[in-house]
Amino acid sequence: MMNTNEKNQGITEHIVDEVRRLAGAALPADALEAARNSVMDWMGVTIAGADDAMVHSLIAAANEQGGLPQASIFWHGGRTSASLAALINGSASDSLDFADSNQNMRGHSTPAVVATAFAMAESRKVSGIEFLRGVIAGVETECRVGLLVQKGLKPGFHPTGNIAPFGAAAAAAWLRDLPAERWPHALGVVATQASGLHNSGGTMSKPFHSGKAAMNGILSASLAAHGFNGRVNAIEASEGFLSTHSDSVGEELMRSADGRYLILDTGFKSHAACGLTHDTIDNILQAKREHGLTAEKIRHIDIDVPVLHLRVCNIQVPVTGLQAKFSLRAVAAMALLGDDTTDINAYTAELAARPDLVALSDRTTVNGREELKSASVANIELTDGTHISVKSDSRTPSRDQAKKREAVSRKFLLLVTPVLGREQAEALHRSIGSLQDLDSVAPLIEGSLKCVAAAA
Amino acid sequence: MMNTNEKNQGITEHIVDEVRRLAGAALPADALEAARNSVMDWMGVTIAGADDAMVHSLIAAANEQGGLPQASIFWHGGRTSASLAALINGSASDSLDFADSNQNMRGHSTPAVVATAFAMAESRKVSGIEFLRGVIAGVETECRVGLLVQKGLKPGFHPTGNIAPFGAAAAAAWLRDLPAERWPHALGVVATQASGLHNSGGTMSKPFHSGKAAMNGILSASLAAHGFNGRVNAIEASEGFLSTHSDSVGEELMRSADGRYLILDTGFKSHAACGLTHDTIDNILQAKREHGLTAEKIRHIDIDVPVLHLRVCNIQVPVTGLQAKFSLRAVAAMALLGDDTTDINAYTAELAARPDLVALSDRTTVNGREELKSASVANIELTDGTHISVKSDSRTPSRDQAKKREAVSRKFLLLVTPVLGREQAEALHRSIGSLQDLDSVAPLIEGSLKCVAAAA
Repeated sequence: MMNTNEKNQGITEHIVDEVRRLAGAALPADALEAARNSVMDWMGVTIAGADDAMVHSLIAAANEQGGLPQASIFWHGGRTSASLAALINGSASDSLDFADSNQNMRGHSTPAVVATAFAMAESRKVSGIEFLRGVIAGVETECRVGLLVQKGLKPGFHPTGNIAPFGAAAAAAWLRDLPAERWPHALGVVATQASGLHNSGGTMSKPFHSGKAAMNGILSASLAAHGFNGRVNAIEASEGFLSTHSDSVGEELMRSADGRYLILDTGFKSHAACGLTHDTIDNILQAKREHGLTAEKIRHIDIDVPVLHLRVCNIQVPVTGLQAKFSLRAVAAMALLGDDTTDINAYTAELAARPDLVALSDRTTVNGREELKSASVANIELTDGTHISVKSDSRTPSRDQAKKREAVSRKFLLLVTPVLGREQAEALHRSIGSLQDLDSVAPLIEGSLKCVAAAA
Repeated sequence: MMNTNEKNQGITEHIVDEVRRLAGAALPADALEAARNSVMDWMGVTIAGADDAMVHSLIAAANEQGGLPQASIFWHGGRTSASLAALINGSASDSLDFADSNQNMRGHSTPAVVATAFAMAESRKVSGIEFLRGVIAGVETECRVGLLVQKGLKPGFHPTGNIAPFGAAAAAAWLRDLPAERWPHALGVVATQASGLHNSGGTMSKPFHSGKAAMNGILSASLAAHGFNGRVNAIEASEGFLSTHSDSVGEELMRSADGRYLILDTGFKSHAACGLTHDTIDNILQAKREHGLTAEKIRHIDIDVPVLHLRVCNIQVPVTGLQAKFSLRAVAAMALLGDDTTDINAYTAELAARPDLVALSDRTTVNGREELKSASVANIELTDGTHISVKSDSRTPSRDQAKKREAVSRKFLLLVTPVLGREQAEALHRSIGSLQDLDSVAPLIEGSLKCVAAAA
């Protein structure tokens, strides 16, 4: 059953040309820094999330089928095939829901791509700088597919599942040196595997999307290398990826990104709660800092947010730690009371029930505002009658890579030190910092292993 | 990001209950026969299609990652993990586009399910009858998901990719004896991997859908067995499988199938051309038989078909053998001229260019008719002025299992004899016939190997 009605011909070819040019160029310092920041952030959340029950399930299923010992499982140790290692590590990196995101693709941009790049770089013994080029190839690809889809992604799909696989396929293609003319086949066969339901949220299937995207990407690049011919324009051809997954095709938007490193837009989560609560936390912290606020001085807090937030993170009376992460009232109270919102262990049932937090939450109202598109506003009324208003918009990504490096470094050490100990965590931090000069990625993988910490 | 708006709760649970009851019951003779027919048809098309370039690509990619030697690759021999064996064999079985289909799911019902069942049964050493129960569990599951979707499948998706994985997951769950309460997790995690683009048609990605469905099904059942918790109602919950893949939810239609073995509806392709050409071929063969037609007696043939067919199999002047399979004019001429349309090797460039076939094609017109929903009509005008009209509707499946057995047996021997030799083909045919009495599926797998033929 052939289909020859090829709309928008040239999109896949254009993406392949652009991405290969960007990844292969003399890398600008900020692009290199952005890629290294992504790797550092990824390693922090992966090591801190590796002991999750979901990861143990994946390791058991991987052991059941076995594979050549090509690539390592982070923190746990042990090797399996590149494909299965990427499945496990990619899922682990999203287990805390604390990974980065990139608004060009409107989802987690790093979990699948960096998991793929590590598995391919380790199994093929490539250098640190080539590894970083592979990460860039992956992120630039998925961001460009993301720009094609943009806000048109059909309801029910999850960008981290449906768009990230294109990035994984490109990272794998770069790191196995797939000839340019085979790339459209790799993207074609990964397109026909694109999947990921939004209703996986709240279950193990959600972080699994990142791991499965990595696994599908590695398989697709491998098939393309071994003569498998997919539809070379499966993204744009009729009855293809865009027509099934998107209500619009942002071809101009995608082409307007020509020559730009979209990885510069990657944003890193600083607070260990739902991403949509970050602006509110930042607003409260800023007001506290500038006005010396304490709980007693506060009569009422009004939190104004985009209407979407009401559906996602407005649990009024959280009971569990997970629920607290999805409660704007709770995280606002945490920020004001001095609880460390960047600490993944701060969100507990005890915290949710603590009287001072409950009392402050009770003086807090969350309002959905149609006029707010991405920013959030905190309006604070003090007992002396003063009104304070603070606004933040973290959805507009910062392009200050040095500032992001500081934040990512702090987050990495905060996450990894309790798991590996200070000495190993700091050594690993230094290794990542000099990644572009390393002969291989082995020091990063070995530095993540729990057995090293046990021996120290 | 949790989603608690669960519409249509109970659908997944209902399917699991029904399927487990049907697969575990004392099997009625016709259901057993239908399952055995499916296995025979599957083995014929798999062995005949195993040498395809696409299969060699998959084997190379599988070898690259390796796996425990759990399950065999049909015809080629060699073992790999159950997961990778199912990927290879499932794809091989659809490489000729000659596999069966079931109108309840509107796609190939057997490739993914039987490939999964073989890989699981071999790796777990289960008996022939348990293997057949696994096949039934798989087909009954995918047909029920198919009834939920029915004609609502959104344009651009391919049922063999998007619906078959549910069958593969159920077959794997049955054959690994997954506890009932874990089945919804297996179906939940396979739902979030459901994929398959219609524009893969005409490329290697199309048969790959069946293999990938099998691989995803095996992984999902394995994960569910190892404590992985997916969304247990991912099929019906909002922002889930049905909402992303279907424009309607045929819950009543699905429930109306309670207690029925839908595998009885499976239809087997008899002609080695596009499935939508079969009614036309049958019409011409019937007219030829009943009226002693020869090419010289024919002034003109009008082929009336549903409008859909014009888009799928109406190549006016085919040049290659593959194009001839998608040309109503060419296959009608073949049938009348005595070319064997059931022979996969009959469709060649030489045939397409043959003067007598071209001359008859030139006297044939294909017409799309809005009033025809599934049937096709041949109106034949003879040189003596006689008009003959014949109508067929093979889309309405036959439930005569014994008649289907005869057709499948003939097809099997026609496909397998040239590949394995008559002796091995007939021995294998006998083994399949007594499958329910075998202690294991090993004789079927060993009987398919090319090395056996070489030694004979």
